[in-house]
Amino acid sequence: MSKIPYKIYLSEEEMPKQWHNIRAEMKELPDPFINPATLKPCTADDLAPVFCKELVEQELNVTDKYIDIPKGILDFYKMYRPSPLVRAYELEKKLDTPAKIYYKFEGTNTSGSHKLNSAAAQVYYAKQQGLTHLTTETGAGQWGTALSMACAYYGIDLTVYMVKVSAEQKPYRKAVIETYGGKVIPSPSETTEIGRKILAENPGTGGSLGCAISEAMEVALKTPNCRYVLGSVLNHVVLHQSVIGMEVKKACEKYDIQPDVIIGCAGGGSNLGGLISPFMADKINGKNNIEFIAVEPASCPSLTRGKYAFDFGDTGKTTPLMRMYTLGSGFMPSPNHAGGLRYHGMSPIVSKLYHDGYLTARAVEQTKVFEAAVMFARCEGTLPAPESSHAIRVAVDEALKCKETGEAKTIVFGLTGTGYFDMSAYMAYHDGRMNDYVPSDEDLEKGFATLPQVNL
Amino acid sequence: MSKIPYKIYLSEEEMPKQWHNIRAEMKELPDPFINPATLKPCTADDLAPVFCKELVEQELNVTDKYIDIPKGILDFYKMYRPSPLVRAYELEKKLDTPAKIYYKFEGTNTSGSHKLNSAAAQVYYAKQQGLTHLTTETGAGQWGTALSMACAYYGIDLTVYMVKVSAEQKPYRKAVIETYGGKVIPSPSETTEIGRKILAENPGTGGSLGCAISEAMEVALKTPNCRYVLGSVLNHVVLHQSVIGMEVKKACEKYDIQPDVIIGCAGGGSNLGGLISPFMADKINGKNNIEFIAVEPASCPSLTRGKYAFDFGDTGKTTPLMRMYTLGSGFMPSPNHAGGLRYHGMSPIVSKLYHDGYLTARAVEQTKVFEAAVMFARCEGTLPAPESSHAIRVAVDEALKCKETGEAKTIVFGLTGTGYFDMSAYMAYHDGRMNDYVPSDEDLEKGFATLPQVNL
Repeated sequence: MSKIPYKIYLSEEEMPKQWHNIRAEMKELPDPFINPATLKPCTADDLAPVFCKELVEQELNVTDKYIDIPKGILDFYKMYRPSPLVRAYELEKKLDTPAKIYYKFEGTNTSGSHKLNSAAAQVYYAKQQGLTHLTTETGAGQWGTALSMACAYYGIDLTVYMVKVSAEQKPYRKAVIETYGGKVIPSPSETTEIGRKILAENPGTGGSLGCAISEAMEVALKTPNCRYVLGSVLNHVVLHQSVIGMEVKKACEKYDIQPDVIIGCAGGGSNLGGLISPFMADKINGKNNIEFIAVEPASCPSLTRGKYAFDFGDTGKTTPLMRMYTLGSGFMPSPNHAGGLRYHGMSPIVSKLYHDGYLTARAVEQTKVFEAAVMFARCEGTLPAPESSHAIRVAVDEALKCKETGEAKTIVFGLTGTGYFDMSAYMAYHDGRMNDYVPSDEDLEKGFATLPQVNL
Repeated sequence: MSKIPYKIYLSEEEMPKQWHNIRAEMKELPDPFINPATLKPCTADDLAPVFCKELVEQELNVTDKYIDIPKGILDFYKMYRPSPLVRAYELEKKLDTPAKIYYKFEGTNTSGSHKLNSAAAQVYYAKQQGLTHLTTETGAGQWGTALSMACAYYGIDLTVYMVKVSAEQKPYRKAVIETYGGKVIPSPSETTEIGRKILAENPGTGGSLGCAISEAMEVALKTPNCRYVLGSVLNHVVLHQSVIGMEVKKACEKYDIQPDVIIGCAGGGSNLGGLISPFMADKINGKNNIEFIAVEPASCPSLTRGKYAFDFGDTGKTTPLMRMYTLGSGFMPSPNHAGGLRYHGMSPIVSKLYHDGYLTARAVEQTKVFEAAVMFARCEGTLPAPESSHAIRVAVDEALKCKETGEAKTIVFGLTGTGYFDMSAYMAYHDGRMNDYVPSDEDLEKGFATLPQVNL
């Protein structure tokens, strides 16, 4: 039997005390955010009405490679971190592959995902600044749950705009958020101007992340002592999620594990960005030649079929412009698509790394994803979230390739969360009610037509 | 800051390699099972048609203090064990108590509970014996999920009779079991003689564990190469669950933690029996003076208001007679009661220890339980199962007593699982739709009237 245990847990003392800021390592930086009113790069003052001060500083910080994690956040992290790096012995056996497969499992907390890493940080800083209220959006519900947990802990009021179709499909997700004291409003709603406008134009809509973001931002701007928080895409979220990659790197060093491939699912890109962060720095600096693979749903293919362009982060076109891979803020994902990973854009950091050739991307179809998810559940025990299962799909494909070639590659993937609240999607898969919708070129053109015309 | 980390994880090498058999340590043994046909103690041959061979041996083994865990089970355990012993620093802060509170958290696997510890063992032995099919019952659904996970892993067919009211309240629990390949039948059903009989007598019934057990046993007896497995109550289940207590004891020794109070929720008693097992042995042998507290729901109070009598384990009166604290196999728990802990009887081991004064019991009301659950979730992060929250309630009460007296007691409780699939109960609590039904003496008399008249 191998000396590597099924689960590698770092000790509390070995937990990272700093986040890793990948931008400070990049040869070329992502383009700065652009203020759509002035068409000039956003300043801290531009962002301050929306985000709390410390997060604005982190958002704009491109020079510090490491940023200290405050003790108040570390204490929260200690309740559920470090998360295990698991050797997937049973999956390897099942696939009969020479590959060595590891996954970093972020699902061992009640939010069921990695989202808590940034939620804790964002709420902590909001509390430090004396804020009393936060607003946010949630799609699949993991972010809303994570944020409500952090708000309960630090003592801040929370309003969550939840994509309507998710709120209807997942009443229990909503109930969890409410158990932690968060207020849930299905989006689009009558509570905001943008919500009323979207409902007037498209009364039957199931909503989208972009639209929920617009509503949450509108409320944050209008409410005293209130700010908006976002669970993905932004630079400071990728920064907080680097705690995942830092732990993986330390565990790999401790057990002399050298990854050949690192795979992450990519919706807004924060989990992937955080997972690869310290390994990517080494690659940029010529210290490794790891293949990084971003996996996205074929139904919402921002990296593989999107444009690298300046775009708004929300449907209401109220955010700064970010240069990223995008399908256009007006792109409406298929309601048939299960779980998260429905965002029209992609983290500017991940987009830039992809654009410069440091990472590759694959789009996978939904039923193939659930096929991998069920196989994984039955041999490894853990029931994966649909989002995470995108990474499982490609990890399995890579391991099967190794079986053909005989290569004993070391594959690491991010298992971002659990699927306890996604059983309606699993039921649809079992019952053959799930289809593999892929947007046509015409569908995509409709989204691209909503891209802003910007000449900088 | 204290030297004790938030979470104590044993290493894979430190995992117990043996289960602890508390009966071999008891001054007086529980009464043997009685064959209702002969009124003589059950032999291995009596039990063999229902249970697989190795489990029958374990069931009857009152002499070996330790029983080796086979490698095939240890490998399964390694996927989700050892489980953490968590120091509840945040709960202590919240309660402002001098008490030190620890909980053993068994919810970090997809079944969401400790049930997997015995499921793995039972399915492994069935496979070894060449069986191809198992039947069982499930109430809240944790046991059914655990068993379906183990059956998927070892490769055995599974039919689960799920208490009808649970199957209706928890469609997603059912979906998880089906994801792992288990077949779910709401009980009572038309698929068995006893099911048809119960339906004829009581067409609107929501079912009960005792009734689901009867159905599962009937099918096991009629199907070739098939046996019945049970998730609690029986001696071999308590044996398997001793892995919990063994890990807690090792963790306590490693960090020099000396519990003053150990608290567990008690439905059928296997979690409690397993948690206290090695500590109870020391108490029996005069090596500690720990206070052991079993916590049961006031709505199904087998220890605090039941009779210590020979009774059947199921409504259909087909099992051997077991001497235990019981409300009578005809006792029907209130459908208003959330989650598990609805069984009419109690593990004969736990019953005997209680009868002989080695452990005490408390009955708690439902809304008080959920009040503690929500407080716990908001400060410790983890969303607890309703069952586990019975133990939280009493741990909180004990910690508050310490606040009054100034005693710095060390309190350990079992957090048996997570509440992800119990959100309808949480919603009922939030909405004020939950009541504190407590059976009247007349209600209890109706159950006691179903006790068999046995003269041994």
